[in-house]
Amino acid sequence: MSLVRVHNFSVSLDGFGVGEGQTFDSPFGHAGARLIQWALPTRTFEQMGMHGEQPGTVGIDEAFAGRWGSDIGVEIMGRNKFAPKNGPWPDESWRGWWGENPPFHTPVVVLTRHPRPPLEMQGGTTFHFVDAKPKDALAQARRLAGDRDVRIGGGTTTIREFLAEDLIDEMHIVMVPILLGRGERLWEGLEGLEQRFRIESVTSPSGVIHLTFERRVGT
Amino acid sequence: MSLVRVHNFSVSLDGFGVGEGQTFDSPFGHAGARLIQWALPTRTFEQMGMHGEQPGTVGIDEAFAGRWGSDIGVEIMGRNKFAPKNGPWPDESWRGWWGENPPFHTPVVVLTRHPRPPLEMQGGTTFHFVDAKPKDALAQARRLAGDRDVRIGGGTTTIREFLAEDLIDEMHIVMVPILLGRGERLWEGLEGLEQRFRIESVTSPSGVIHLTFERRVGT
Repeated sequence: MSLVRVHNFSVSLDGFGVGEGQTFDSPFGHAGARLIQWALPTRTFEQMGMHGEQPGTVGIDEAFAGRWGSDIGVEIMGRNKFAPKNGPWPDESWRGWWGENPPFHTPVVVLTRHPRPPLEMQGGTTFHFVDAKPKDALAQARRLAGDRDVRIGGGTTTIREFLAEDLIDEMHIVMVPILLGRGERLWEGLEGLEQRFRIESVTSPSGVIHLTFERRVGT
Repeated sequence: MSLVRVHNFSVSLDGFGVGEGQTFDSPFGHAGARLIQWALPTRTFEQMGMHGEQPGTVGIDEAFAGRWGSDIGVEIMGRNKFAPKNGPWPDESWRGWWGENPPFHTPVVVLTRHPRPPLEMQGGTTFHFVDAKPKDALAQARRLAGDRDVRIGGGTTTIREFLAEDLIDEMHIVMVPILLGRGERLWEGLEGLEQRFRIESVTSPSGVIHLTFERRVGT
């Protein structure tokens, strides 16, 4: 069975996966770029064109960052990751944050209560707009993924909902030593989560802490 | 000027310094001993008689745990750390959790809205019951400490209040990879705390993450 994986998802020390006041200009709200700053210099993010023209770092941050794409056949993301606003689509002109050639290169399931026709982009990315509960969305995503793995791409609510329903097999969380104070909490309502996972952590010279969660065998 | 320090204060991954439902039998509420488990095998805690008859570990957990006592002239603790219940004292028979020879061996300021006469124990510990705001309690504690440092001993609320008023110079927080889901949050209302501190982190083979906060010079 293919695995359901989370990669490169950052939270603040006080557990916020996104700040308050998300807008078109600040997709992370008042957090700004602080939650993803650690990733920008890595080779993986450089190659995604997120940053500059450097070859990119290859240390521990890259070691984790680089795992996000291997064997992934589909991504599931929340509406909030795809677009800056919730509610009915005013029209279908919004094509995501990533330009005409998004970095996914697989089908992407966008969870929304307002479905619209699939949107085929360049480079192999097609957005499918699906109104479904996590479990059913996952079944749809698995059909799109073939025998490859499913990545849960965020945002915060989406990951939390998939965790609450015990649908995630492995998860890489990056704890950034800042206190956001407000926004959306990843860890809300997940008491005892550690019983379902083997958790490992390691610190990086960049200042962040990489945490990995692997589902315990037999649970 | 003497420093104000926090040592060996544990929080869960979701930021709780204590669980819900504190009682005489479970001072950490539903968290049980999970928040302090990392410390029990260390030489420092063995020598405090918290555990057993082993000499105690001397690895990274001990390296941090052992710093709690050096150059400390006084501890400030909240009422909740001293006694299992809030409110007026039914009588003065409660003498703390630690027996007749508590491990502090210095004056201890207990913050309470219900002062009572000082309580002199064996081994140099005297509890002083003080009804004061953090800043004034700190001034009193400094007089008791001579030129030595002040330790803020917890609990969660006490540390958070001293942080909020910017009274802490250095702080050692231990993040335990469990999700408590409920209890008291350390990080509440401390947005931007990282701007006042240099933060470092390191993981331990015991599974916990040691975080140190040093006040930035010039702030």
